Amino acid sequence: MTTWFPTLITPTPEEGFDLAIKLARMAVKKTQPDETVRDILRPQYASDATELIAASHVVAVHFATIAAANGYWTANGDGRPR
Amino acid sequence: MTTWFPTLITPTPEEGFDLAIKLARMAVKKTQPDETVRDILRPQYASDATELIAASHVVAVHFATIAAANGYWTANGDGRPR
Amino acid sequence: MTTWFPTLITPTPEEGFDLAIKLARMAVKKTQPDETVRDILRPQYASDATELIAASHVVAVHFATIAAANGYWTANGDGRPR
Amino acid sequence: MTTWFPTLITPTPEEGFDLAIKLARMAVKKTQPDETVRDILRPQYASDATELIAASHVVAVHFATIAAANGYWTANGDGRPR
Amino acid sequence: MTTWFPTLITPTPEEGFDLAIKLARMAVKKTQPDETVRDILRPQYASDATELIAASHVVAVHFATIAAANGYWTANGDGRPR
Amino acid sequence: MTTWFPTLITPTPEEGFDLAIKLARMAVKKTQPDETVRDILRPQYASDATELIAASHVVAVHFATIAAANGYWTANGDGRPR
Repeated sequence: MTTWFPTLITPTPEEGFDLAIKLARMAVKKTQPDETVRDILRPQYASDATELIAASHVVAVHFATIAAANGYWTANGDGRPR
Repeated sequence: MTTWFPTLITPTPEEGFDLAIKLARMAVKKTQPDETVRDILRPQYASDATELIAASHVVAVHFATIAAANGYWTANGDGRPR
Repeated sequence: MTTWFPTLITPTPEEGFDLAIKLARMAVKKTQPDETVRDILRPQYASDATELIAASHVVAVHFATIAAANGYWTANGDGRPR
Repeated sequence: MTTWFPTLITPTPEEGFDLAIKLARMAVKKTQPDETVRDILRPQYASDATELIAASHVVAVHFATIAAANGYWTANGDGRPR
Repeated sequence: MTTWFPTLITPTPEEGFDLAIKLARMAVKKTQPDETVRDILRPQYASDATELIAASHVVAVHFATIAAANGYWTANGDGRPR
Repeated sequence: MTTWFPTLITPTPEEGFDLAIKLARMAVKKTQPDETVRDILRPQYASDATELIAASHVVAVHFATIAAANGYWTANGDGRPR
């Protein structure tokens, strides 16, 4: 069995950020499973500042979760620099 | 007695994500209990980028709660990778 | 003396979710205490997808607080499954 | 010297909720210090479902902070019921 | 060297709240560095209930961060009243 | 190999705030990779109070993550002043 989302753990902050973007998009995909509809909507919202900022907001919420899950990618896991 | 929501604990992140979607929808259902009305609204918001992003945002907030409840699905439960 | 809100502790996640809905509505009630006005507004927002999603968002924020207050309804209270 | 906001600690959840409402309003007051303008705006947003829900959202965010500050009004302060 | 933001620590909740307002405004300033444009926008959004509530929301998010940074201004720093 | 985002750790709160702005913009960039489109949108949203506040909101969410990752830039890392 495969899964699109096996873990919240990523090697680096950058990969954690990419996962946040993936999670934000996946919720859209699960609400609107029809790819044809999404293909019509994508160029619209990608050219609208309000919706780009709204999408960035969702990424920020997911990134907060992923960063906490990874102990902020620091050695001691409680947020203090090494 | 049965309950639609017995626990926040899920075996995997993916199932946690699905629970987040369920919680986001359940709040809509409890605010608008009339299924006929919801059936009219669903195709509208599922074809509107602004509302899809807004729905994705609600999923992100619930997913944060579920991920914390599951100790981020890591062994030590505090967010550090195994 | 009675209070409408004696505790954040609930026996189950489902009751915690219902409390989250109650808190979301109570803030509306305290901002617009006139029941007649609220009775006019309720059918409007309950038939508008944007506002239903916005209401669901508020429920999600309160549910996060309630879930943390209840130690996610797990035995050890720190989010790790039993 | 007096202060409008001496502490986040409240005896009960209900008083914590009232403090959350106060903080939400205080940020509006500090952004628009002119009471005359606020008196014109208040009946408008109090009769608009979108804005009532948005106001309820701000209360939810402040309530999360206040609830954490009060250890969720539980004995052990970490969110586990007594 | 000076900095506009040396620390998250404030002596009192009230000063923490003022810092939250400052951070909310600073992000606007860094996105729109032209003071002339900001001077035109300020009276507009300060007279619009939707935007005042949105601004109050941003303050609430920053205040949550600042309150946590200050241990909620309690002696033990974990949110339990003294 | 280089990365645009090697760490959440910053020496000071001010640099943490700048990183929050960078993360908010990076999510927009990854959703709309076409620089020409972004160059058209930027002056629009930078002159619109609603969008400036929305952008400030995203910065606030990222800043919360970054502040936690840095132990709020305090010695003990749990939010209590030194």
